[in-house]
Amino acid sequence: MRMYDLIEKKKEGFPLSTQEIRWMIDGYTRELIPDYQMSAMLMAICFCGMNEQETYDLTLAMRDSGKIMDLSGIRGIKADKHSTGGVGDKTTLILAPLVASLGVPVAKMSGRGLGHTGGTIDKLECFPGFQTALTMEEFTENVNTIGIAIAGQTAELAPADKKLYALRDVTATVSQLSLIASSIMSKKLACGSDAVVLDVKTGNGAFMKKEEDAVALAKEMVRIGTMAGKKMAAVVTDMSQPLGNMVGNSLEVMEAIEALKGNGPKDLMEDVYTLGQYMLLLSGCAEDTDEAKDKLKNAIDTGKAIDKLAELVEAQGGSREFAYEPARLAVAEKKIAVTAKEDGYISRMDTAEIGTACMVLGGGRETKQSVIDLSVGIELKKKTGSSVRRGDTLAYLYTNDDKKGADAKRIVECAYHYSTDMPSKTDTIRGVITE
Amino acid sequence: MRMYDLIEKKKEGFPLSTQEIRWMIDGYTRELIPDYQMSAMLMAICFCGMNEQETYDLTLAMRDSGKIMDLSGIRGIKADKHSTGGVGDKTTLILAPLVASLGVPVAKMSGRGLGHTGGTIDKLECFPGFQTALTMEEFTENVNTIGIAIAGQTAELAPADKKLYALRDVTATVSQLSLIASSIMSKKLACGSDAVVLDVKTGNGAFMKKEEDAVALAKEMVRIGTMAGKKMAAVVTDMSQPLGNMVGNSLEVMEAIEALKGNGPKDLMEDVYTLGQYMLLLSGCAEDTDEAKDKLKNAIDTGKAIDKLAELVEAQGGSREFAYEPARLAVAEKKIAVTAKEDGYISRMDTAEIGTACMVLGGGRETKQSVIDLSVGIELKKKTGSSVRRGDTLAYLYTNDDKKGADAKRIVECAYHYSTDMPSKTDTIRGVITE
Repeated sequence: MRMYDLIEKKKEGFPLSTQEIRWMIDGYTRELIPDYQMSAMLMAICFCGMNEQETYDLTLAMRDSGKIMDLSGIRGIKADKHSTGGVGDKTTLILAPLVASLGVPVAKMSGRGLGHTGGTIDKLECFPGFQTALTMEEFTENVNTIGIAIAGQTAELAPADKKLYALRDVTATVSQLSLIASSIMSKKLACGSDAVVLDVKTGNGAFMKKEEDAVALAKEMVRIGTMAGKKMAAVVTDMSQPLGNMVGNSLEVMEAIEALKGNGPKDLMEDVYTLGQYMLLLSGCAEDTDEAKDKLKNAIDTGKAIDKLAELVEAQGGSREFAYEPARLAVAEKKIAVTAKEDGYISRMDTAEIGTACMVLGGGRETKQSVIDLSVGIELKKKTGSSVRRGDTLAYLYTNDDKKGADAKRIVECAYHYSTDMPSKTDTIRGVITE
Repeated sequence: MRMYDLIEKKKEGFPLSTQEIRWMIDGYTRELIPDYQMSAMLMAICFCGMNEQETYDLTLAMRDSGKIMDLSGIRGIKADKHSTGGVGDKTTLILAPLVASLGVPVAKMSGRGLGHTGGTIDKLECFPGFQTALTMEEFTENVNTIGIAIAGQTAELAPADKKLYALRDVTATVSQLSLIASSIMSKKLACGSDAVVLDVKTGNGAFMKKEEDAVALAKEMVRIGTMAGKKMAAVVTDMSQPLGNMVGNSLEVMEAIEALKGNGPKDLMEDVYTLGQYMLLLSGCAEDTDEAKDKLKNAIDTGKAIDKLAELVEAQGGSREFAYEPARLAVAEKKIAVTAKEDGYISRMDTAEIGTACMVLGGGRETKQSVIDLSVGIELKKKTGSSVRRGDTLAYLYTNDDKKGADAKRIVECAYHYSTDMPSKTDTIRGVITE
């Protein structure tokens, strides 16, 4: 087999066979196929697409390029959850202990933030002493003992995807449905859970700006997961403004704790409940969505959910008190108010810009090598649809650096747009896709 | 400027600006832009194309990536000729001395053969002692003294094209009209002649298999050259069978000498006369094609043409006798007959396969590093349209190696196809494109 012939075949619009895709991904992982041939292939895929079988084959070839987590030592139907990424998305921090407190084993691998989006692993590290690098034994043991463990994703999982993604990132070949779906699903399948609930974000703060693209991606991922024998559901959710009111690592942990105590903002809780319902349904812990929702609310009301977070923090090296006393988390001392420039309604927000402002404050990574400041962030006092008067506080910035604070302030100011008429409401939950 | 943005721009179907193309080619030549980004760009160009301005800009950017020949020291309107390559194409060997003998200064840079096609420089080296590496002074001096010089193309000419072509060659991005046209024209423009006549081959032995593609390429190259201030013409010619009867370096030189003495085969001479007419017209050495043809025929009849070849050989280190006594050229001793398997007509020939057979004999390069045997080759006794009887000799192979001879024989046998009806004739000259 020659990579040249495969490029030509794809360029001419023919589908690649299972064997060809496996050979290509194996050769690329082992550095037998050079980047310049793979990038030509990726661009040809951007124009010619991949059919369902090809996309599935690519997913499995990438899954099989590295280690596959063996969760067979964990009892029960293991549930995983994945978000395509957004601004203020602290859902995992809430959902994981919430469903674990209801008996769903959560054995979760998470990532770090990059660019304008945050990552669960960074957020968990806001708890002093919290360890995200667990051995397989510790990971399994924790899930079996307390029903939950969250670890940083090892580089041994789907290394082909890691290498391919890095190449797509510099060759303008990221935004192709099959490539996106297979990238996400190869990692999810390598993580070994039995059930996967996907949170596919749409809107100007999401990777998939258009809702139709988000729906198509959700469908494709559910299809792939189902073909691979997983129980699957995907929820398409709004990211046309930040989720909840806090953006930045410590601030988001504080908001997550409040949510687990029953004080979460409406949009965030809608997201949490919908995803949670499907995690319970797929794991067999509820018969229908109503029962699932009752169970979730009950876990919060009775304190079971926040207790599970405390157990998680303690089991991974932190101190459980932090789960009950969020004020002890480190937050930057300097607080800068961003005020409204006009009277009227907030008509829309440039969501990615809010994420960028947090990055500028030092709370996000410009490159994978960036060192971040967990204590900085943005507290939103007004969001889309809010009525404001000139001079009202729109948001507070928490910073440790005046210059960065001033830069971020300008960005946040520009991220708010005004109108004289009240904008129409956007539902947080845009749709659910099941098998 | 970032290469990422240019790839995305092209991928989305927007044209690149002159400045962007110059920046990209300059950066790629200087190795500031990696191959993996350029190959993604090339693939995007294959799908989105380049408009006329972009193609022209790319040509000039590649021309300007290296040295541009300064032929101002040579008097008169310098004419160049270029063939897109084929099997048995020894036209330059005939045309160059022929038009030079009529007063057109020929300052020609030529290449070596690769794959199933031959190259003028290899053929000239069949003359013992012939030097193709000339200094600029020798080159200019020879043209001023005897009206002709043919030298190997220096790597200093259009290095961006060389680098880009090597990348296209391994990423299945060769066959795109704008990339082909700019590649050829960047070198032609760097060679510095005032007039360029292109021989664009079409048919199964040519790069452009379809005639419409060959015509489109011819038009595009004439357009680019004209925009760059050159006098241009292109002749689209048949390559659905080898040109003339000889394939292989020494054999082709012998056939070229016979042609200069008035004994050339019909198809070869049609090609030579048509190209020659336009070289004379563009150089101002003839008023119209009839006058030009008369002059060309006269140069052959009077011996001026063959004398000019003798002068060329002598001026570049060879012995002039070889031009008059072609039998002194080295030809492989073993002669193998290929015979007809059926009665009937030769309906068609797999032209590229004849070139491949010559390569298998050792007369062509599989890779740029291959060392070739100038003495081997194929003498065709029958071509398309010939009436044959089973057992008739179709061709003779000249080889120095029995194993290679047997392999080549099988290839040549399979390259001949038969029919009971006489096939329709194909004109050698398919069309002429002028400004």
